[in-house]
Amino acid sequence: MSSSILKSSSIKSQLIKTAKGTRDMLPDQMFIKDKVLSQIKDIFKLHGAVEIDTPVFERREVFQERYGEANKLVYNLDDQGGELLSMRYDLTVPFARFMATHNIQKIKRFQIGKVYRRDQPNQTSGRYREFYQCDYDMAGQYKPMVADAEVLKVFCQQLKNLDLKFKIKLNDRRLLDYAIIEKALCKQEQFNSICTSLDKLDKEPWESVKEELKLKGLDQDQIMKIKEFIDIQSESSVKTLEQLRYLYPNNKILDEIQLLIRYLEEMDCQENIQLDPSLARGLDYYTGMIFEAVLTGEERNLGIGSIAAGGRYDNLLGYFSKNQSIPSAGGSLGIERIFNILEDRHKKSKSIINNVDVIIGSMGEVESLQLMRLASFLWDNNIKADIIHEKIRFKDQIQQAISKGAKYMIVLGEDELKLNKVLIKNLNEKSQLALDFEKPQIIEFIKKGL
Amino acid sequence: MSSSILKSSSIKSQLIKTAKGTRDMLPDQMFIKDKVLSQIKDIFKLHGAVEIDTPVFERREVFQERYGEANKLVYNLDDQGGELLSMRYDLTVPFARFMATHNIQKIKRFQIGKVYRRDQPNQTSGRYREFYQCDYDMAGQYKPMVADAEVLKVFCQQLKNLDLKFKIKLNDRRLLDYAIIEKALCKQEQFNSICTSLDKLDKEPWESVKEELKLKGLDQDQIMKIKEFIDIQSESSVKTLEQLRYLYPNNKILDEIQLLIRYLEEMDCQENIQLDPSLARGLDYYTGMIFEAVLTGEERNLGIGSIAAGGRYDNLLGYFSKNQSIPSAGGSLGIERIFNILEDRHKKSKSIINNVDVIIGSMGEVESLQLMRLASFLWDNNIKADIIHEKIRFKDQIQQAISKGAKYMIVLGEDELKLNKVLIKNLNEKSQLALDFEKPQIIEFIKKGL
Repeated sequence: MSSSILKSSSIKSQLIKTAKGTRDMLPDQMFIKDKVLSQIKDIFKLHGAVEIDTPVFERREVFQERYGEANKLVYNLDDQGGELLSMRYDLTVPFARFMATHNIQKIKRFQIGKVYRRDQPNQTSGRYREFYQCDYDMAGQYKPMVADAEVLKVFCQQLKNLDLKFKIKLNDRRLLDYAIIEKALCKQEQFNSICTSLDKLDKEPWESVKEELKLKGLDQDQIMKIKEFIDIQSESSVKTLEQLRYLYPNNKILDEIQLLIRYLEEMDCQENIQLDPSLARGLDYYTGMIFEAVLTGEERNLGIGSIAAGGRYDNLLGYFSKNQSIPSAGGSLGIERIFNILEDRHKKSKSIINNVDVIIGSMGEVESLQLMRLASFLWDNNIKADIIHEKIRFKDQIQQAISKGAKYMIVLGEDELKLNKVLIKNLNEKSQLALDFEKPQIIEFIKKGL
Repeated sequence: MSSSILKSSSIKSQLIKTAKGTRDMLPDQMFIKDKVLSQIKDIFKLHGAVEIDTPVFERREVFQERYGEANKLVYNLDDQGGELLSMRYDLTVPFARFMATHNIQKIKRFQIGKVYRRDQPNQTSGRYREFYQCDYDMAGQYKPMVADAEVLKVFCQQLKNLDLKFKIKLNDRRLLDYAIIEKALCKQEQFNSICTSLDKLDKEPWESVKEELKLKGLDQDQIMKIKEFIDIQSESSVKTLEQLRYLYPNNKILDEIQLLIRYLEEMDCQENIQLDPSLARGLDYYTGMIFEAVLTGEERNLGIGSIAAGGRYDNLLGYFSKNQSIPSAGGSLGIERIFNILEDRHKKSKSIINNVDVIIGSMGEVESLQLMRLASFLWDNNIKADIIHEKIRFKDQIQQAISKGAKYMIVLGEDELKLNKVLIKNLNEKSQLALDFEKPQIIEFIKKGL
C-alpha cells in the first residue's frame, strides 16, 4: 500500500461512502441474515433440493436480449481486453445457462446470491442496487401440476417457518389468456399491457384501472368481460373454482387448477393459498401457474409488497440448451424484505445478540497470560468466549459482557488466584460463586449451564 | 424474455461457457463448501468474532492507489452514468473503508466473500478470477502481542478442525528489517526487492536466490549477513529464538517475539507454529508479526502453496479514518485451496452425499396424490424426503434412492395399500418391513432410525 496523494481529512471523508444503492451489513444485521438464511436453506433441503452457485458475472451475450426492457438496468464491466462481461440481473438466466453448460435435464435446486440492477434505489421499501435473491426451482418433466404443487408447498413452509402471517395468491396465466383473448376478444398483442393494468388492482381502485383499459383501446363490452372474470373472488379456492366453472364451462385449464387445489389440500397448505383470478404479475415468461405471497398480519401495513413470487415457465430454461425444452416451476423469496421485517422485530424485542457465552475479566494485577490460558482452554472445549484485556473498571467489564450477550463472566482476581480460586458470575441470574481454578471443572460447570 | 435472434444451436453452444477464470459450483461442490464454511464460521464465532459484509463493488476512488502494481488487475465497471465503480480485489481495503464509514475503533470480525482479479487463471493450482476470501481480523488497541497470539491460535484451530496436517511459519517484519537494513546495511529502498527474492526460498535453492541478490547489487558481505540470519532454523521456536539472541544480543524485537511464543505455548499451539527467519511474504503493508501456513502431510505434494497467511498491519485500517490509526492483526484462509483438498478427499472416499433421508417410491397403480400426502407429512415433521413420481422399474427407484443418499425408502404398493400397509426398506441394512399406513407411526419409526 503506497502512502498516497490523498492525505487531507476532507478528501478522506469523501472516500468513505459506499456506492449508491449498496450498503454494508453490520454485525447485528449479519447475525439475523445468517440465521434466516440457514432456516431457509433447511426447508429447501427438506425437499431434497440441492444448492448450486454461478459466477457474479457472465459473458455479455448470455444476458443480451434476455431481459427485454430491463436490459438497460444491467451493469456492464469495462472493456479491459478479453471477453465483454456483465453482472447478473437475476439468478434465472444464469440458471438456464447452467443447465445447458452441464447438460442437465432435471434438477430440484436452490440458489442464494446477490444480483445487480442499475435501478432507482429506495431504502424504505428495501430496493437496492445490490441485493439477495433466493430461488427455488423444480426443472424437468413431472406429471401435470405435481411440481407446481410442491413449489407452492415449499414457499408456504418457508413463510410459516419464518413466523410470518401471509396469504399466497394463485392464478394461471393460461386462464388469464382465455379470459382476455378468447372471451373478451382482446388482441394478443394487447395482453401484456392489459395485465400491467390489472396488476395495479392491489394499489388502485377499479375505476382508475378501467380508465386505463379504455385508453388502451378496450371497449365497454371487453372491459365488462374482464371485470366479470376478475370479480370472482372468495376466501375459498374451491368456491372460486366453482364460480369459474359456471362462467367458463368445459374449460380444460380449470381441470388442471382443480387438480392443483386437490394436491394443495392433501399437502395441508390450502389455508394459506387463495385462487385469485385478478392476480396478473409481470407475465412475459410465465406459461402456467403463477403466485404471489403478501403479508396479512400487522406487518401488512409496512407497505413492502410481495414477499415471495413465482410460477411455471416452460420455455425459459431450455433456451441455451440444444434441441430440448426444460419445463420448470419455481419462485423467489423476497429475502431483503424479509430481512427488514426480522431486523425490525429484533429491534422491537430489544433482545441482545449472543456473540459469546463467556467473558473472561480480571480484578487487580492479573497477567494477560493467565486470561489467555483459560480462554484457550474454553475455545478448545468448544465454548464461545472472549477476553477483556483492558484494565477498565469492573462495572464496565460487566457491562461489556452483557452487551455481548454472555451468560457467564469468569473473573480472575489477584486475591482469588492466590487461593487458587476464580469467580464465576451468572449474568442472567445475577448470582456468583467461587470455584477452584481447575480448568476441567470450570468447563464442566459452564457446559452444564449453557 | 423475448424469443430472440439467437436460434441456431451452433450459436447457442457458444453461449454456454462461463466467463474466463470463473466456474459454476455443482451440487456436490456446494455441499462440501457449505459444510466447510459453516465449520470455519463456528471457529471464528468461538472467539466472539462478529461477521460483516460489504458490497462487491465500491466507488473507484476507494481502490485507487491502494493496490500498487496489482491495481491493473482490478475489474472496473463500465461508465453507464453516475459513479465510477470497481470490483473488490480483496476484503481488506473494503474493511478499512467500513471502519471509517461506521467510525469503529475496535472490532474482532470475520468476513467471507468473493473477490475479483483479472489475473491469469490456473485451474490446477486453484487460481480463479472470481474466488472466495475468508478473513479474520482483530482491529484496535491491544497489549503487545496479545492480538497477534490470538490470530495465530484462531488459524491453528481452523486448520486442525479441518483435519489438515500443517505447519505455520512465523516471522516478524521488523526483524527482517533489522537483519537486512541495520545489520547487512542494505538500503531501505532495496528492502522489498530483497524480500521478494527471499520469498522464493521455498521453491528455489539458495544458489539461485544468491545470484538474484548479486544482480540486485548486494555485495558478498551483505549476502553473507543475510544468509547467516535466514539460516537460523530449528524445529523448536525456542531454540531458534536462542540463536537469534546470540546473533543479535540486546535486540528489543526479540523480547516481543519471546512474549508471543510464550503466549502460543500457553494456548497450546506451539507445536504447529515454527519461528522461521527466512519467511518473507509480500511485505508492503505488514508492520510486525507475519505468518504463513503450509501443508505437511501427504497432501503437501499437491503443490498448492500456502493455505493461510497474514500478519500485523498497523497503518492500513486507519487509512480512510479521520485522525486515527487503527492497529490490526489478521489473516486469510486459502479457502479455495482447502475446498479443492476436501473435494478431493470426498471423491477418494467415494462416500455418497446425503441429499435426503427418505425416498418415497411406488409399485403398481398408485396416484401421485398419495405419494405427496405422505411426503408432505414427512416434510411437516422435519424429515428430508423426496418423491419418485415417474413410473420406472423398482430396481431403478432403489438406485435413485441410494444415489441421493437416502437411508429409507418407503414404498406405496398397490397391493399393500389395499391392506392399509406400506413397505419401509432400510437401504443401508438391506432389510425391510411392512408397517400399517398410519402416518404418525411411520414418522416415529423413521425418526428413531435416523
